[in-house]
Amino acid sequence: MKRTLIEKVKGKAGEQVKIVGFVHIIRDQGSIKFLIISDISGSIQVVITKDAVEALKISKFLNLESVVEIIGLAKIESQAPEGIEIAAEKISVLSVAAPEMPIPIIEKSEEKVSLQKRLDWRFLDLRKPKNQLIFKVWTLFEQSFREYLIQNGYIEIHSPKFMSAPSESGGELFEVKYFDRKAYLAQSPQFYKQMAMASGFEKVFETGPIFRANPSFTSRHDTEFTGYDMEISYIDSHQDVMKEEEKVTQYIIKKIKEKYGEEILKLFGRDLVVPTMPFPQLTMKQTKEILEKMNVPNERDGDLSPEEERKICDYIKKKEDHEFVFITEYPVNVRPFYHMRLEKNLKLTKSFDLLWNGLEITTGAQREHRYDILVAQAKEKSVPLESIQFYLDFFKYGCPPHGGLGVGPSRWLMKIFDVSNVREVTYLYRGVKRLKP
Amino acid sequence: MKRTLIEKVKGKAGEQVKIVGFVHIIRDQGSIKFLIISDISGSIQVVITKDAVEALKISKFLNLESVVEIIGLAKIESQAPEGIEIAAEKISVLSVAAPEMPIPIIEKSEEKVSLQKRLDWRFLDLRKPKNQLIFKVWTLFEQSFREYLIQNGYIEIHSPKFMSAPSESGGELFEVKYFDRKAYLAQSPQFYKQMAMASGFEKVFETGPIFRANPSFTSRHDTEFTGYDMEISYIDSHQDVMKEEEKVTQYIIKKIKEKYGEEILKLFGRDLVVPTMPFPQLTMKQTKEILEKMNVPNERDGDLSPEEERKICDYIKKKEDHEFVFITEYPVNVRPFYHMRLEKNLKLTKSFDLLWNGLEITTGAQREHRYDILVAQAKEKSVPLESIQFYLDFFKYGCPPHGGLGVGPSRWLMKIFDVSNVREVTYLYRGVKRLKP
Repeated sequence: MKRTLIEKVKGKAGEQVKIVGFVHIIRDQGSIKFLIISDISGSIQVVITKDAVEALKISKFLNLESVVEIIGLAKIESQAPEGIEIAAEKISVLSVAAPEMPIPIIEKSEEKVSLQKRLDWRFLDLRKPKNQLIFKVWTLFEQSFREYLIQNGYIEIHSPKFMSAPSESGGELFEVKYFDRKAYLAQSPQFYKQMAMASGFEKVFETGPIFRANPSFTSRHDTEFTGYDMEISYIDSHQDVMKEEEKVTQYIIKKIKEKYGEEILKLFGRDLVVPTMPFPQLTMKQTKEILEKMNVPNERDGDLSPEEERKICDYIKKKEDHEFVFITEYPVNVRPFYHMRLEKNLKLTKSFDLLWNGLEITTGAQREHRYDILVAQAKEKSVPLESIQFYLDFFKYGCPPHGGLGVGPSRWLMKIFDVSNVREVTYLYRGVKRLKP
Repeated sequence: MKRTLIEKVKGKAGEQVKIVGFVHIIRDQGSIKFLIISDISGSIQVVITKDAVEALKISKFLNLESVVEIIGLAKIESQAPEGIEIAAEKISVLSVAAPEMPIPIIEKSEEKVSLQKRLDWRFLDLRKPKNQLIFKVWTLFEQSFREYLIQNGYIEIHSPKFMSAPSESGGELFEVKYFDRKAYLAQSPQFYKQMAMASGFEKVFETGPIFRANPSFTSRHDTEFTGYDMEISYIDSHQDVMKEEEKVTQYIIKKIKEKYGEEILKLFGRDLVVPTMPFPQLTMKQTKEILEKMNVPNERDGDLSPEEERKICDYIKKKEDHEFVFITEYPVNVRPFYHMRLEKNLKLTKSFDLLWNGLEITTGAQREHRYDILVAQAKEKSVPLESIQFYLDFFKYGCPPHGGLGVGPSRWLMKIFDVSNVREVTYLYRGVKRLKP
């Protein structure tokens, strides 16, 4: 007999069905017993009456969270949570759970479990339907991102995570014992996605882990996270990269809203909005002027504090009814040496960040592809040339003008679900103090 | 004026077009000059006659591999390699290449460049149309793999690469300086994809880097490579995992043959065959018996040497006209502790490898999900229990029976193109002695 997904039982009223899943709830009402069984598609009520002698016997020894297979009759039942229930005929226990759960799967409001304890038992925490929805949405998010790019001629690359030199600034670097020498973990695929431009791949993307030895404990930092990267050749300026990001963003959010919009609203109270194009834009100079008028303290010259990110998004939301805003023209001192500079003002870069509802979710720029200028910019920033010579070489033998961006999908997920901690949307969070499970 | 991809110029004979690309060949024939320009879509001949005064002037200073933008008239020309050429009207140099190339892009047969030198200059090596095809196919390969899985309800996970303990055998482990302690790089997502089964995700996949401190220098080993992993709940045995692999394999190869079959045949001489289902199967015992009859030396008890892998595939090819063969029932001593054992013979595991034309491309198994048995098997293999307690915990609170597999896409690519060295199909190879570029 083939197993039926729980969400499909609705369509099978009057039929005998087989389901599998975890026992989330057991309720004993004298001669009759109710179970709530959950699989990846949903939950259903199972009723065990005294007629089902064998099933009743087995159910007496059933622990919460054991994995069971149940055969029974699907029938309409207005009292059941989903309007349908299964009258059990046969129960088989596929896996027995220990009697005491370290954390409850179905939380009762009075016993709020701490985040640390939930992370200690993340594999149990992830049994909650709310958390499973996060990773269903992540799957669609990533697939939509890739779908858009592949339909538009991008090539996928897998760049090495072992490097002989840092790809970003010298700090926050993890060192690896590499046979008889040292290697470093890539802080981004930056150098190697630019290499693809020098190789004539024209448009590439990569999805993969990013390693940053960031000692901070904030709600939006981790030592390891997933990054999505894109790089495009033959652009006229960073504006071409921004246009591409608008398109891919709209494409992704539309897909997610179509498939999961209702569930996200129901479980998280967040009503996803598909953004209109073009997205609002402000230069850093304009941004700082607006913030000054709003009396928001200027904490970082040429860059935005978390507080400033929130305030400028509030402003744009009110003024233009848009959840996104591009901030452009960051000054040279807050951007890496490989960002191209603005012709009209060499103190500014052809770069941008994208903010979504108060959080920075992307950094991008046109890259400097002219060897001599690139070397001069690296020197100016005191980057040791010998260690990046292999990268500088990419620009010696012909390289198209290009630019790109990097996206942190977990930050996008935070905004999709309107949750404030990156740990909630990460499969297994890694931080300074956390390497387990 | 919008840029036309070179492959699209054919459809625009008689029109003025703009192309961009690298100058791969320059031929001077007195008053007339020919260029071969390549972009990611193909190559085309550009002719510069003395009427195009400005273009001719610029072309005099043109180096091989510079990046140019050319505007001109597309016209049918039977003498041109593709039957069409562009009569240049305007040439702009977007990026100037240094006059001496370290390796040639268009290799002349007399000057064969060594593999090491090609890897030193990998970004130039990748400009060759043959190499670009490899990564176009990789892109489709990965997308087809994901498409099949997502259509079938799989959830994507990104498991951490930092671990507190090895996930496979203790050897070949990279150690990372992790703030005030040590971490290890994941040798596979094994533990964490099994965790998703304990979390009730039912079917998951992951694509990402795998790290193995393998000191060997063979043509099929590297210290870092891309892995594709799958894990499935509610299976009856490893045969269910094998069935799923047959389906995904057929799906992928069909897609690749449809889109790139002709190009692969033309550039690599490999005629891709879409495999029929079911794939042939042999137990390890049967395999060894056949090899013995073929007088192939038995180098590894219960496992296959590269020589044996080739010979058994030759045998199957001849006997069943099939490029694939599953080898099943590996003995306990060559498999990790978490492989489930065969009920009928506890010295054997419910495991398999998949071989393709002489090369092992997959390892899979049903996993042991019963806590007590798993602990006993770990003890038997002398795995230190304290270091994997976090993993053993996954099986304490209910866990569906499950199994899965791991695939090395670069090995698949070797077989798709019939090339013998993994370095040829890796974007940037990493080995004991190679961390650059």
